Amino acid sequence: MLDNFFAPNSLAIVGVSLEKEKLGNQVLKNIVRANFKGQIFPVNRKATSSTYLDGLKVYPALSEIPEKVDLCIVVVPSRFVTSIIEDCGKKGIGAAAVITAGFKEAGKEGAKLEKELLEKAKQMKVRILGPNILGIIDTHHKLNASFAPAYPPQGNIAFISQSGALGCAILDQCRDEGVGLSKFVSLGNKADLDEVDFISFLKDDPHTEVILGYLESIQRGREFIIAAKEVIKEKPIIMIKSGRSKAGRKAASSHTGALSGADEAYEVAFKEIGIIRAKTVVEAFEMVRGFSCQKPPRGRKVLLVTNAGGAGIMATDACEDYSIELASLDKGTVEKLKEKLPPASSISNPLDILGDAAPDRFKFALETVLPDPNVDAILLLVTPQTTTRPRETAMVVREVCKGVDKPVLSCFMGGDIISPAIPILHEAKIPNYKDPASAARVLKGMIDYAIIKEKKEGEKISFLVDKSKAEEILISERDRGYLEIGGSKALQIMKSYGIPTVENYLAHTVEEAVKIAEKVGSPVVMKIESSAIIHKSDIGGVKVGVEVEEVPQVFRQIVENAKEYLKKEDGIDGISIQPMVKEGREILIGAISDVTFGHLIRFGMGGKYVELFRDFSTRLIPLSPSAAEEMIEETRIISRLLKGFRDEPAYDVELIKDSLLRLSQLVEDIPWIEEIEANPLVVWEKGGVIIDARIKIAREE
Amino acid sequence: MLDNFFAPNSLAIVGVSLEKEKLGNQVLKNIVRANFKGQIFPVNRKATSSTYLDGLKVYPALSEIPEKVDLCIVVVPSRFVTSIIEDCGKKGIGAAAVITAGFKEAGKEGAKLEKELLEKAKQMKVRILGPNILGIIDTHHKLNASFAPAYPPQGNIAFISQSGALGCAILDQCRDEGVGLSKFVSLGNKADLDEVDFISFLKDDPHTEVILGYLESIQRGREFIIAAKEVIKEKPIIMIKSGRSKAGRKAASSHTGALSGADEAYEVAFKEIGIIRAKTVVEAFEMVRGFSCQKPPRGRKVLLVTNAGGAGIMATDACEDYSIELASLDKGTVEKLKEKLPPASSISNPLDILGDAAPDRFKFALETVLPDPNVDAILLLVTPQTTTRPRETAMVVREVCKGVDKPVLSCFMGGDIISPAIPILHEAKIPNYKDPASAARVLKGMIDYAIIKEKKEGEKISFLVDKSKAEEILISERDRGYLEIGGSKALQIMKSYGIPTVENYLAHTVEEAVKIAEKVGSPVVMKIESSAIIHKSDIGGVKVGVEVEEVPQVFRQIVENAKEYLKKEDGIDGISIQPMVKEGREILIGAISDVTFGHLIRFGMGGKYVELFRDFSTRLIPLSPSAAEEMIEETRIISRLLKGFRDEPAYDVELIKDSLLRLSQLVEDIPWIEEIEANPLVVWEKGGVIIDARIKIAREE
Repeated sequence: MLDNFFAPNSLAIVGVSLEKEKLGNQVLKNIVRANFKGQIFPVNRKATSSTYLDGLKVYPALSEIPEKVDLCIVVVPSRFVTSIIEDCGKKGIGAAAVITAGFKEAGKEGAKLEKELLEKAKQMKVRILGPNILGIIDTHHKLNASFAPAYPPQGNIAFISQSGALGCAILDQCRDEGVGLSKFVSLGNKADLDEVDFISFLKDDPHTEVILGYLESIQRGREFIIAAKEVIKEKPIIMIKSGRSKAGRKAASSHTGALSGADEAYEVAFKEIGIIRAKTVVEAFEMVRGFSCQKPPRGRKVLLVTNAGGAGIMATDACEDYSIELASLDKGTVEKLKEKLPPASSISNPLDILGDAAPDRFKFALETVLPDPNVDAILLLVTPQTTTRPRETAMVVREVCKGVDKPVLSCFMGGDIISPAIPILHEAKIPNYKDPASAARVLKGMIDYAIIKEKKEGEKISFLVDKSKAEEILISERDRGYLEIGGSKALQIMKSYGIPTVENYLAHTVEEAVKIAEKVGSPVVMKIESSAIIHKSDIGGVKVGVEVEEVPQVFRQIVENAKEYLKKEDGIDGISIQPMVKEGREILIGAISDVTFGHLIRFGMGGKYVELFRDFSTRLIPLSPSAAEEMIEETRIISRLLKGFRDEPAYDVELIKDSLLRLSQLVEDIPWIEEIEANPLVVWEKGGVIIDARIKIAREE
Repeated sequence: MLDNFFAPNSLAIVGVSLEKEKLGNQVLKNIVRANFKGQIFPVNRKATSSTYLDGLKVYPALSEIPEKVDLCIVVVPSRFVTSIIEDCGKKGIGAAAVITAGFKEAGKEGAKLEKELLEKAKQMKVRILGPNILGIIDTHHKLNASFAPAYPPQGNIAFISQSGALGCAILDQCRDEGVGLSKFVSLGNKADLDEVDFISFLKDDPHTEVILGYLESIQRGREFIIAAKEVIKEKPIIMIKSGRSKAGRKAASSHTGALSGADEAYEVAFKEIGIIRAKTVVEAFEMVRGFSCQKPPRGRKVLLVTNAGGAGIMATDACEDYSIELASLDKGTVEKLKEKLPPASSISNPLDILGDAAPDRFKFALETVLPDPNVDAILLLVTPQTTTRPRETAMVVREVCKGVDKPVLSCFMGGDIISPAIPILHEAKIPNYKDPASAARVLKGMIDYAIIKEKKEGEKISFLVDKSKAEEILISERDRGYLEIGGSKALQIMKSYGIPTVENYLAHTVEEAVKIAEKVGSPVVMKIESSAIIHKSDIGGVKVGVEVEEVPQVFRQIVENAKEYLKKEDGIDGISIQPMVKEGREILIGAISDVTFGHLIRFGMGGKYVELFRDFSTRLIPLSPSAAEEMIEETRIISRLLKGFRDEPAYDVELIKDSLLRLSQLVEDIPWIEEIEANPLVVWEKGGVIIDARIKIAREE
């Protein structure tokens, strides 16, 4: 269906002006100038049978067009757009690109208009791109239905942009730097079609090998993940997601009116999908250039070849910054190099072939190292020294790299002197970078992509749990008006999903309390049990290490403190009594619901210093066993403590894994849990228990 | 004295060839082509009275030149260089730039040659630049005594480079990007003159306002610090120090043969001096362009002005990345803006003046916000949209910013369309960047520079200490062959400098031990005392919580364990007995000697997990009280714990500060201490003590 947006056989453009140079006319000019091969039908309601524009007959209405129309470009004022969409439906046009602005982005009135537009589109079965877009470009079908001032060269990169203005800048830069696009789509307000539709469509587009996106928000997070995971198996996705910072997110929401979830959620989702996130436009350009020119490497080992020691050192630094492994040359390769390179060369990595290297020495070096099985990719560094011949060197590189199945990136550093080399390199699909750090970042992106592309999706497992028990507690609390749940109720919910919790007994009277303490074995922990009190210790509602004989006095004191805090008699459900738990590692498991991607699950160092250490990892649900393992592994500190630090024992990581998976199932089963956190989960060498937990639920399911 | 290198009235070039196109001739050509105004005397030993080259009379020897020579450029083969330096001395030439390679960088033979050269130079009172250099350039004196293929435009940036090849690339890029240099110096092997000499010289150079350096090592760290601190009060220094990574450092040392200290030491030193460190060449260019065009801001608050929402968001993200404060517009400014900007504008920060902004709207906006007292600097973002007129917009910016004393940076994003704006901006000294992130990084550099420039040097304070006691112990241990010192001796050294240590008594017999335990009050801690045993716990040499009645048995057991470890009877000095120390925060203080900068002092979270948490800060000695405070403050975790986390008490930070200052004095007094570390220093609400310490000393003082 989206084919009609990119490769229509005919298109109508509604909203050209007969008198003035308006936006519609500019779009029409762009269409004509790009040499669109299909039929073009301009529409203006004042047109007569003899109205022509740019040599094209203008129709007074869509219904008057005698032929089939595949795509309608809408540029009429916003208040007329809905009726044009109705006309589209009547005419059997299934695709409309609404360039017109003045909808959701313009405030309440606009939002209402947009809602009406969408309803009409659904009713008439017309798919909408926009409104409020820069337009749509397909270089392979010579379609430029946009008012962008720059038309990019043809290429294999599809670019999807939520910002029209930034789209303009990038299209302009594409032309300037010779970066070729296959398609450009401006998403605008995304009333109907959005990034999910387009990236799915691009998966099978034969002209597209790399997808570049600029997004400020994602509306359908879960669907995006599923779609993008499919696409990534075929084509890399490079994404600028702006609004990374808190202030940036505020700026974004005032810009497009779109609500965007926490940046952490995007970070986690992109990582899980395998989307390469670019922080800046420059980074994005560098990345797409690399991917559009070269296939990702089969391994991780990179060889640096240089004619300048300093450049080699800087590239080495950059490789370490991006955790790129440096290749060790094979013995045979070293021998061959030694035979012909000057003795002062450094036959190592970086391979320094010296400042006086003429093109033939570059040729020999590259030809010798390229077949080395220890080398997966090459970064060639060239600085313009007295005897350097940049143009000829580039030609030699082109020759040597022809048909080679390992990525070669280059870094010809300098300005005027090296500039003749650049077009030769780029024509030969050797991406050239100004700086070793840029090249290293791109190589890292390619290495990561090669890995994630081959990664198998973890299997999801299901546990037998008591879902109705958990739901029952949650519903009953909600019905009582409590949206924050702690104490024994929170523990029970965890327990109902098979996550081990500390023994916990509720005492309503002093006598009961003493009996329980005797049974549990003192010393015990006593805590106020009240849905109205969440931070129990802060109000003197917790006492640890209580001996049996102290129980009555402590009972009364805690109740007293609680009453004082609550300023009333009721609201206290009793005192919960727990045995003292033997020492272990304190960890935290939890989940939080993100507006974009649904629940994120978290693992980390627990205890009272959680916020201080900030040592945790995050994943999307549903969690697979392998993802749970990775989560534990990727924490900086607690992962190492759990393995047994120095003379300390190792802890029960299996229990943590199991608990994380069960927690994932819990929030998947009961999605109206907004936040859930167990802290601490005390883990021993074998086993462990949750001592405390709290849950936040939504007012509505 | 260095004047003769940059502004000689006459120069000789020794080593031009009469027959072939050799390096010397290339240098001569560069000198002639740059239009050097002084006298040029080429020298070739085969020259006769009628030998001419490039229209210049060639002399057979320096001594034959009839006039005074200020600078000698040496390009003869390495084995002849020393004798040429002798000739220089005889002729009264005090400055020689030795381009010739084949010295230290080429191995042992070369290193010997270099040593001879240096000795001769000292003897003859000739100062040497090099050997192994690309040359020297002074655009204001039209001197290009180099074989660099590119000559940079004239400007206010001085560039010092340890790498000739990278120097070539940067000079080429300068020409390409129109970045103007005042001077270029290739440092080469730095046999005599080095970065310290040149940055000191540049301090008073009227043509230089910004100093850019590429260094792989610094030889005289302490002198560098003193010199650079002086310079930084006048001019910013931007430095690429490569070999940041371990692998990079290895590559660097194989490249120039120069030993470079730990990168951490450079990081600390640069930060303390206020040198802005650029990680890449691109970053360095961006930074010097900013500093060479604009004065640093007087405050920290930046306003973003944009015609594109997306660009505004990206800039906001970048500002947060670099901890740049966003300005809040003054009420009056907001009112004025509201009057004339279209209602859809976002009058906030970013100030979004919308995609259809023509030059006059940019003019109005900038004129209105520039005088706002809440705005210290402006970043202007422009994307090429349909009605954007980049050239005219640039002209308007130039006009508005004329004479304004707040820095304005711009980011005209795109390619061909915006390109006509760039030369206008750069001519008007408005630095333009491709990407908001680059501009934000430069702004951050400028803000930081403005702060450090005004910062007062902390006062050094001296304590009354028992230096001879500390030295006595160290010398006696060294004389016994022990270079690692732990146990009570290490504690005594700390104590002799007034740092509080735990009470510690040495028992030689079981009876003594019991008596001490009774006096100290059990339970006690018992530790083996032996200079031969450093990691006491690992060999069963430590027992905590020993009651008096257990003392004899524990004494025997520890001695037993130690004997088993030492495999001999002697080497045990006894058992040290300490009281159990009450709980507190465990911190670490220490110092380590760096080959480049001398002692670094360290503060951080202590205890057994030091390496896991890696929560520490580092400074150079001598430490000032304010620097000690900053050190404590800048740790991520322990600083917050010391202040009293949640319901916890605050700890004795004054004690830590005092201990750090005393430790600084200790390593300054006794510099042959290579490493010293107290861990833990247990700190209480009031007071604290070191429980354990270890010291590593050098074999020689």
